[in-house]
Amino acid sequence: MDAKRFAATVSYDGTALVGSQVQPNGRTVQEELEIAAAALFGQLTRVELAGRTDSGVHATGQVAAFSAVTRLGSATVGRALNAHLPDDVAVRDVREVPPGFDPRRWARRRWYRYTVWNGEAREPLLRRTAWFVEGNLDFEAMQRAADALTGRQDFLACSGKLEPGRTSVRTVFRAGWDRAGDTAWWDIEADAFLPQMVRRLTGALIRVGRGALEVEEFVRLLRQAEQGAIGPTAPAHGLCLQRVWYDEGYVV
Amino acid sequence: MDAKRFAATVSYDGTALVGSQVQPNGRTVQEELEIAAAALFGQLTRVELAGRTDSGVHATGQVAAFSAVTRLGSATVGRALNAHLPDDVAVRDVREVPPGFDPRRWARRRWYRYTVWNGEAREPLLRRTAWFVEGNLDFEAMQRAADALTGRQDFLACSGKLEPGRTSVRTVFRAGWDRAGDTAWWDIEADAFLPQMVRRLTGALIRVGRGALEVEEFVRLLRQAEQGAIGPTAPAHGLCLQRVWYDEGYVV
Repeated sequence: MDAKRFAATVSYDGTALVGSQVQPNGRTVQEELEIAAAALFGQLTRVELAGRTDSGVHATGQVAAFSAVTRLGSATVGRALNAHLPDDVAVRDVREVPPGFDPRRWARRRWYRYTVWNGEAREPLLRRTAWFVEGNLDFEAMQRAADALTGRQDFLACSGKLEPGRTSVRTVFRAGWDRAGDTAWWDIEADAFLPQMVRRLTGALIRVGRGALEVEEFVRLLRQAEQGAIGPTAPAHGLCLQRVWYDEGYVV
Repeated sequence: MDAKRFAATVSYDGTALVGSQVQPNGRTVQEELEIAAAALFGQLTRVELAGRTDSGVHATGQVAAFSAVTRLGSATVGRALNAHLPDDVAVRDVREVPPGFDPRRWARRRWYRYTVWNGEAREPLLRRTAWFVEGNLDFEAMQRAADALTGRQDFLACSGKLEPGRTSVRTVFRAGWDRAGDTAWWDIEADAFLPQMVRRLTGALIRVGRGALEVEEFVRLLRQAEQGAIGPTAPAHGLCLQRVWYDEGYVV
């Protein structure tokens, strides 16, 4: 029997996870998925993810892929994996994909959301999923700054450490703020992201909102493309990987 | 100096709390507020709450009241209490109220929300705040059943144990379902609630949604007013006390 290749949409509460990729110092999404898959299939199973998320970052739409020799259908695989996974990680929409499917390289577009709690006092029910930012924020200025992000350009200014020789040019399709009551969030969609890109942009946009950084200066720093000039890095717990898109036909 | 009386709006993540009222077997909202107030004012401070919430139930709009001999203004009291409170409890909108203010007896209307996650698989980011209900739900039938709740009537059928001689007649002002994606919730506003009332109603409404209980039978059980006939009791963690209203003029 040939191995089948599966893709799954993955949700996780990143609070107690040290990130997406396997590493020695704590539980990771990849590790939890590999442990669950090994228990289910009775064999070591390598799991690949669409995007790296830092320690503490959440996801409702990460994509994982793995191969297994199994008679089980995709719906059964999904239910069985969830029975093995801890309560801060879950899969859904498990489906069969072509043998060479690579969730990272085949991804066409990724959507991140960063959420801010802008209430008068901290909100216990949002403490794990929103950054508490006090004081008045100028959302009109924050949106004007976000408008400068769309299009194909060099995002080195909002990148953490990059491997030498790697390009920092990305295409941002959408960058917009929304609000409901004292909760505010911004969504950014791009072909791919640089390390800490959304968190650094968020840190700078909040500075814009507080009047500590002019929109024009934000745009100047962005265009100047000096690594790490845009920041500070906002906390991980406000960030969530919402969705990854692929070419139509095999994976949504 | 006379004692000032304060009211505060209280938010809490009920996950690790054993309810609102002081009791010997774990942390409660009242106890945490009294500890924080004692630390702030340097004196034992009795805290009263608008509504009792069961172990595991959340709030974004509980109301607490307490008296203290202090020179501090209400905004300072709020900030200082939050510095003393644990991260799953917080106050906001602290304001001075008349000396006899009783947050429970003076309350005119209370609003609870019960949230259900109706996705294909469990959702880790909602596991503390929404009840995971699988399968198709008939929201039209659930709304028709909820419609039977409005008005002044005897709610004994959806009450837990009641002290002898207490009336179970309440007035429900609003009862309605809403949905956004795979998240569904219903809001109920009433002058006051009976023990476990919202959780029992939710359990029965979900049975209606699954087709296990006809709307007509739900209404019949409700009108029959036999204690505890409506249920089962839905889990505590989907429930949140959203707001308490008072007569206008001193407290909102």
